[in-house]
Amino acid sequence: MKLQVALDLFDLEAAIQVAMELKGVADIIEIGTPFIIKEGVRSVTSIKNIVPETLVLADLKIMDAGKHEAGLAFEAGADIVTVLGAADNSTIEGVVKAAGDFGRQVMVDMISVPDIKKRADEIDKLGVDYICVHTATDVQHTGRNLLEELITLNEAVKYAKKAVAGGVKLETLKLIVPHRPEIVVVGGAITGKPDKRKAALEMKELMS
Amino acid sequence: MKLQVALDLFDLEAAIQVAMELKGVADIIEIGTPFIIKEGVRSVTSIKNIVPETLVLADLKIMDAGKHEAGLAFEAGADIVTVLGAADNSTIEGVVKAAGDFGRQVMVDMISVPDIKKRADEIDKLGVDYICVHTATDVQHTGRNLLEELITLNEAVKYAKKAVAGGVKLETLKLIVPHRPEIVVVGGAITGKPDKRKAALEMKELMS
Repeated sequence: MKLQVALDLFDLEAAIQVAMELKGVADIIEIGTPFIIKEGVRSVTSIKNIVPETLVLADLKIMDAGKHEAGLAFEAGADIVTVLGAADNSTIEGVVKAAGDFGRQVMVDMISVPDIKKRADEIDKLGVDYICVHTATDVQHTGRNLLEELITLNEAVKYAKKAVAGGVKLETLKLIVPHRPEIVVVGGAITGKPDKRKAALEMKELMS
Repeated sequence: MKLQVALDLFDLEAAIQVAMELKGVADIIEIGTPFIIKEGVRSVTSIKNIVPETLVLADLKIMDAGKHEAGLAFEAGADIVTVLGAADNSTIEGVVKAAGDFGRQVMVDMISVPDIKKRADEIDKLGVDYICVHTATDVQHTGRNLLEELITLNEAVKYAKKAVAGGVKLETLKLIVPHRPEIVVVGGAITGKPDKRKAALEMKELMS
């Protein structure tokens, strides 16, 4: 299992600091959507330069112009780019094509997809690397159940690796681990702590 | 009817040039998603500074963290921000809240929404300013019918103003005009022409 840490910080200096602090602990550093909105893909390049051995994911949440938009992030140094599960199949296929051209990877974000089982089954045939169940920040208070979605994903998907994201804390992680997703995405439960490296190490310990 | 011209150019200098060329003709200048991915919201600020009397739309296609992400674009000077129709209602409500706080506007992009009628009816109650039917770039070759979607939108929506986007050309515009959307979004059919101002004026003529 891999630990992906989401950086939604906007200040490039602060983000670089956090990336250095997590060096060798985080398997994947995510450049969060708000960070990309604020800084553009230069944020990807800056972080990749700081931690070249760590995978860097650009959370573009692509909805259109798949090949083209993914190419912008891959050119900037991203190892993985996200596309929305809500996007048209042809958009997802465009991102897969770009990933093939660059020798990189694709994660499909299932955020706000109503029927996870049906859509994951369709997407699984498109040659994507990861499918990620994801409870939106805006609905985390409603108790939409991430664990149930992960179980559904495990049942529906044969080829892609599975990932899980959305408000994951140490307590949630304990429930997630037995279902063995390839990637667990954590944001505030690490980046909001004074000692981020220690928080990440605690999580890695649980995942081993 | 208003003409919105989408700038998907990445080079800030080139985009500024086009914005100046369209001054007084384009009612709204759109900072396209790839442009924001490349440059971040500084692209919004730069263009707004060049054409302060023109409305500037930031095509963020928000899917999560509505209030927060919209705020980034409004702070940068955007007059209108887009959120996806595929997003959760609470995300759309977050964008509406941010727009209220800043005294700005919200457009909902219905790209890849399977049931336009049902979803437009729901979204229409959330207090958004515009609902936009939009054929994705990646599916324009499939003949998904923008005009049919506009007619459906007109039937479903009582409160929001209507907009239409996705590969609109002079020929398409002739078919669209009788249905009187508030905004018609045009990209390549203007920005791909040698004389962009002339192309935009031709379209404005049709819309008057």
